[in-house]
Amino acid sequence: MIINNATYWDGSRIARGRLRNGPSDEEFDATGRLAIPAFSNAHTHLAMTLMRGAGDGLKLQDWLDRVIFPMEQRLTPDLVYKGAMLGCVELIRTGCSSFTDMYYFVESAARAVETAGIRGLLGTPITGFGTPYYRDAEDALRIAESQLKGSRPPRVDYCVAPHSIYLCSEDVLIRAKALARKYGAKLTTHVSETRKECVDCHRKTGLWPVEYLDSIGLLDEDTVLSHAAWLTKMEVRILADRGCTVVHCPASNMKLASGGVMPLPELLAAGVKVALGTDGASSNNSLDMMHEMKIGSLLQKSHRWDATVAPAQVLMRMATAGSKDLAFVDLDDVRMLPHHDLIANLVYAGGAVTDLLVDDRFVLRDGVITTFDEGAVKREFIEAAAELRQ
Amino acid sequence: MIINNATYWDGSRIARGRLRNGPSDEEFDATGRLAIPAFSNAHTHLAMTLMRGAGDGLKLQDWLDRVIFPMEQRLTPDLVYKGAMLGCVELIRTGCSSFTDMYYFVESAARAVETAGIRGLLGTPITGFGTPYYRDAEDALRIAESQLKGSRPPRVDYCVAPHSIYLCSEDVLIRAKALARKYGAKLTTHVSETRKECVDCHRKTGLWPVEYLDSIGLLDEDTVLSHAAWLTKMEVRILADRGCTVVHCPASNMKLASGGVMPLPELLAAGVKVALGTDGASSNNSLDMMHEMKIGSLLQKSHRWDATVAPAQVLMRMATAGSKDLAFVDLDDVRMLPHHDLIANLVYAGGAVTDLLVDDRFVLRDGVITTFDEGAVKREFIEAAAELRQ
Repeated sequence: MIINNATYWDGSRIARGRLRNGPSDEEFDATGRLAIPAFSNAHTHLAMTLMRGAGDGLKLQDWLDRVIFPMEQRLTPDLVYKGAMLGCVELIRTGCSSFTDMYYFVESAARAVETAGIRGLLGTPITGFGTPYYRDAEDALRIAESQLKGSRPPRVDYCVAPHSIYLCSEDVLIRAKALARKYGAKLTTHVSETRKECVDCHRKTGLWPVEYLDSIGLLDEDTVLSHAAWLTKMEVRILADRGCTVVHCPASNMKLASGGVMPLPELLAAGVKVALGTDGASSNNSLDMMHEMKIGSLLQKSHRWDATVAPAQVLMRMATAGSKDLAFVDLDDVRMLPHHDLIANLVYAGGAVTDLLVDDRFVLRDGVITTFDEGAVKREFIEAAAELRQ
Repeated sequence: MIINNATYWDGSRIARGRLRNGPSDEEFDATGRLAIPAFSNAHTHLAMTLMRGAGDGLKLQDWLDRVIFPMEQRLTPDLVYKGAMLGCVELIRTGCSSFTDMYYFVESAARAVETAGIRGLLGTPITGFGTPYYRDAEDALRIAESQLKGSRPPRVDYCVAPHSIYLCSEDVLIRAKALARKYGAKLTTHVSETRKECVDCHRKTGLWPVEYLDSIGLLDEDTVLSHAAWLTKMEVRILADRGCTVVHCPASNMKLASGGVMPLPELLAAGVKVALGTDGASSNNSLDMMHEMKIGSLLQKSHRWDATVAPAQVLMRMATAGSKDLAFVDLDDVRMLPHHDLIANLVYAGGAVTDLLVDDRFVLRDGVITTFDEGAVKREFIEAAAELRQ
């Protein structure tokens, strides 16, 4: 696609001119729109749109035990597909073309990605307990391997996703990494989300979670760690040395009151790759990466008592890390006015996404989703969520 | 107006039925829309939309000295009117029908309120220095009095707005309150926004800011205090005893890295009236009260390490305190799905406002502003902001 009359963000400043994205020579007049790399949601559980708002405001453990886990025991491939499709509506409408997902019934998410025309890096959450998707960790590893060695729909990739150090044994963690290495895949896991997790790990192993993961060989350039809200300076150095990517999930950490704040300034200073994720819609409760940029920036500034940390440009780079696509934002929307600093406007006031260009095709054009019937997806989703709530 | 088939929030739960708002017998079918009290933005500087994004990310004092104050020296009644009109667009589109404003050229804001068809409680920011609006505090007090005793456009009310204890002398503060009492008006001021302000006050007077304001007789049921980010327990008791209203401005406090967090749980426990405000678009940078509810709730939960504080319902009550109007939100918007908890959805995911009913008239109907030409307002605003930037 050739984008004419583009006002665009080049990763550090606003420029004007002509852009190409994808091989086709079709032309698009971008007058009145700001072109940005489409957002990439680096950590979510997409089908948890089904649980948005359920048990809201409970303490983490009550919320999981009384609301989320019972609902998850009733999941089916069909329900997950419908939840993932609604998630795709929200991602597309907020300018996000790719996501890293950790959820049950990965085939359903893959089918949603294919239908929606966006990109997904999908992994089975490997845990030590039985779920409707697998009997045990052994079975989960087998499912993960079948995905890695099988064929995949366009724009879908698979990763290995052991849930966490507290839901996986050491043996399972090591085998998960071996699997990822065997197939050249990414490994993603939750780490250092709560203080309890860190303290439990230290009591058991004498090491903090990142040190522990390093000691068993899990950390390298293909390792993506989400949350990282409680890190020591030593762990920041390890993450830099190993070339890991760390995903900030500020809204979820704040909403679940995990207390810790990812040490963004230290991670950036050490050269660690950082990205941004919303976590699931059940703990955020939004998948909007523009919201997430604002909350991430505000959390860092407020936590550090320093208005200069985590400026808008840094959050934009985190939210679009690795993006291959383009999103377009209405330059005339009230939130984008005036044009003193378009990136500050987008990060702190948000914007109206008009178009989303993925793989040489508009999946959103002039505010209309082109790849599926949004109304039908919503109707099916409402029934699915009601069924799950029973 | 008679609202048929309404799904509405009654202040604590979702109900269904028929609603009346205003005397007319015109009927409105609210099928597919959630009716809520329209938001009330309890602290803003509306025309500072003109400065949105300017000098973003600077430290507070640099930002004021190098960017904001020089721009404010070039303000005119016409520029303020155009800035306030753009602010009205943003308020209306995000379901907000009333605001408490503290800004120069109050007549311009009053004219914008009248044109836009919403409500404004407007006050001249009284300071000790000269501005294009007045020569000195004496002149500012004179202007404030002329507003209080003069006629006012429909839906406009005036208040007395001494800026703060650090920009007003004790004499000016006392005379401002005397003026408010003389005309039965509200008094609003910034208080305890930064630690420096509190420490300076304590050094000078031996009292913390709220104690100090109480000692000079400024606190009663008509006093509205914004920010209150650094409060002692004694000050919380004083606020409760005097019946003051306190306005939480979480995004602005976080963005300017003021460090303090308004002690919402203690204020609520003491029975203090609490409201919510965005502050100006220059330090937020949004006027969206839905954003503000989310940020307020997340800040409290995260700061207190307690996921049960500041639940969605509490933020909704703060954001709609004193509301006389109705806003309608699309129940079928992706962010409002599923319908497990509509208020949690609205607070944490946001919503698409379709209609805004103020004083028996729709100022927004099916997504279109009915009271003025939005396109023309935006065009004039863009020129005004460019002129100010020179």
